[in-house]
Amino acid sequence: MTVTSTTIVTPQKIAFEQAFALQSGAVLPRFDLMVETYGTLNETQSNAVLICHALSGNHHVAGRHHPNDKHPGWWDNMVGSGKPIDTDKFFVIGLNNLGGCAGSTGPTAAHPETGTAYGADFPMVTVQDWVRSQKLLAEHFGITQWAAVVGGSLGGMQALQWTIDFPECVRHALVIASAPKLSTQNIAFNDVARQAIITDPDFHGGSYAQHQTKPKRGLRIARMMGHITYLAEHGIDEKFGRKLRHESYGYHYDIDFEVERYLRYQGDKFADSFDADTYLLMTKALDYFDPAAAYENNLQAALSHVQAKFLVIGFSSDWRFAPERSRELVKALMATRKSVQYVEVASQHGHDAFLMEDSPYIDAVRAYMNNIGV
Amino acid sequence: MTVTSTTIVTPQKIAFEQAFALQSGAVLPRFDLMVETYGTLNETQSNAVLICHALSGNHHVAGRHHPNDKHPGWWDNMVGSGKPIDTDKFFVIGLNNLGGCAGSTGPTAAHPETGTAYGADFPMVTVQDWVRSQKLLAEHFGITQWAAVVGGSLGGMQALQWTIDFPECVRHALVIASAPKLSTQNIAFNDVARQAIITDPDFHGGSYAQHQTKPKRGLRIARMMGHITYLAEHGIDEKFGRKLRHESYGYHYDIDFEVERYLRYQGDKFADSFDADTYLLMTKALDYFDPAAAYENNLQAALSHVQAKFLVIGFSSDWRFAPERSRELVKALMATRKSVQYVEVASQHGHDAFLMEDSPYIDAVRAYMNNIGV
Repeated sequence: MTVTSTTIVTPQKIAFEQAFALQSGAVLPRFDLMVETYGTLNETQSNAVLICHALSGNHHVAGRHHPNDKHPGWWDNMVGSGKPIDTDKFFVIGLNNLGGCAGSTGPTAAHPETGTAYGADFPMVTVQDWVRSQKLLAEHFGITQWAAVVGGSLGGMQALQWTIDFPECVRHALVIASAPKLSTQNIAFNDVARQAIITDPDFHGGSYAQHQTKPKRGLRIARMMGHITYLAEHGIDEKFGRKLRHESYGYHYDIDFEVERYLRYQGDKFADSFDADTYLLMTKALDYFDPAAAYENNLQAALSHVQAKFLVIGFSSDWRFAPERSRELVKALMATRKSVQYVEVASQHGHDAFLMEDSPYIDAVRAYMNNIGV
Repeated sequence: MTVTSTTIVTPQKIAFEQAFALQSGAVLPRFDLMVETYGTLNETQSNAVLICHALSGNHHVAGRHHPNDKHPGWWDNMVGSGKPIDTDKFFVIGLNNLGGCAGSTGPTAAHPETGTAYGADFPMVTVQDWVRSQKLLAEHFGITQWAAVVGGSLGGMQALQWTIDFPECVRHALVIASAPKLSTQNIAFNDVARQAIITDPDFHGGSYAQHQTKPKRGLRIARMMGHITYLAEHGIDEKFGRKLRHESYGYHYDIDFEVERYLRYQGDKFADSFDADTYLLMTKALDYFDPAAAYENNLQAALSHVQAKFLVIGFSSDWRFAPERSRELVKALMATRKSVQYVEVASQHGHDAFLMEDSPYIDAVRAYMNNIGV
């Protein structure tokens, strides 16, 4: 099965009719995971690759859902036939995480007892919860060991957590534009984003669906701010500079500078399409991620039982999860004598680089994946 | 007159009963400037120093208004008897800028024709407008030439603009933690801040006073976000790290991390005390500041007629106006053979360092001011 950017792919919803206890203590009575697969699982189930998504991603990684789809999946440049994560070789699974808003059980899904959307009642989920739910997903497909778990940003955190929680189940982890934990500044930005949403009068304590409204204002502000942190300072300067929309200053609060138009557009688009409760819990999963915490803040200790080999990639202009953060992980892996390759890519794309096509990056993933035996 | 941190100082409101045309084309029929002075103007008027404030500053630079005042003026560590800007030597003027909300004519002041607050009807002001209003202020005091114009951040921009617009009126300019224009990222953050305020349902197009309300939610979000950009990434890490408020994660959206408590406190305090319309126009004055623009984006050309000598100071961990931005100004001054001293201070305090007491910084200002003849 050849997978190209125009291949029509069909997501599937996989039901898990079992109680699922979360790290918070809450228990989901059952849950669904929305999934897309590409390629074919081989007989020995040795060619399975899990793609973990970041804050606003989902299961739709590659191909198109309809012939008229404007865009392919979010990592279509990385996943497909002949692409760095080659679906002619690998069986690739993309999923929407638990708590997401793209079909998996989350705040927008119906509570099995009430029949109405969970909304604010959906419990918080952690990276560890996601990994355990992904383990059940692996079992559903008869996969006992991933050839690789791959992710950028929050997705890379899931890849890392997999190697810690299920060491024997991951041969390779690709941790891209990620960090072993958030910095104080990362947490601070997340809290401002959440406060923008929570204080929006349309938020209604998270139960906005029951009020037939959406906290779009807050979600828009959160995304605009977030978007700035995804872009390199120099990159955004090169792209927009101080370019004006009109010939001169307007002396008003409409759009003066092109960068304002761009940011507001990004904010509007996101606020129209994404769920605020999901955004909140995703940022919280980021804040809470800290695998070293259970080991007296010793990352080496947290990694001591890891069996996977690592490819870690950082981007020079990423100031959200700067290369220094990747290097923390690399150093800890080296100190525990794990196998790790590290690539630091010169890029103007900031944190967003993990979704872009800077060639040393794409080449590094391709070479690494080529060398994985199946 | 000795000025210490406990000296009781009394602001004065100075009325300018004359039409004042703004860069936008709008005309103020009259205006007031709220002012505080420290020290004594000498007979030759050669010892006058103007302190220009930043985004949220005002005229209250040093001393206290009441014996029970909790805090002294915002630059009390810099201005006073025996302090780096020594009021035993200099006659120092602090003012609240036009458009401010601390007593000068601005959105919260009464429109002379209607008697009600200007609100959204207050026109936008620019750094050039401020400098022209400060020129009238100088004339009011009989000052034809400042010994020095001093400011940090947006205040530094005013000092720079003074040297360009009135070259013969400034002997020394101290431009601290500033930039010759905003970067794209700076503008982007400002626009998110403004959008947070403007989309707050309590904003009412800026006429919130008429609706007996205030857009506190939006102003709070704007300030929380702004505050992150004032702090060094490493500094905030050192101060708060991932310190929790309670022993473990709360799995809720209340405060988990100490940095959240701090930021929300800063946001609340600011939203209670500052005016939203003023915040908007201050950020716009920042965005619009670009003295090179009138000279085909050639900063050297903009500086060609400058007569003042400069002390420029940048702080290593300031990522809002990074040292590189100060160096742009320094290089342009050097290229036009102006007198400039540049000090780059190693500091953990980020942009806020200009308000702090890192000793090489304080010492540099002291030494520079000591050497100014009066």
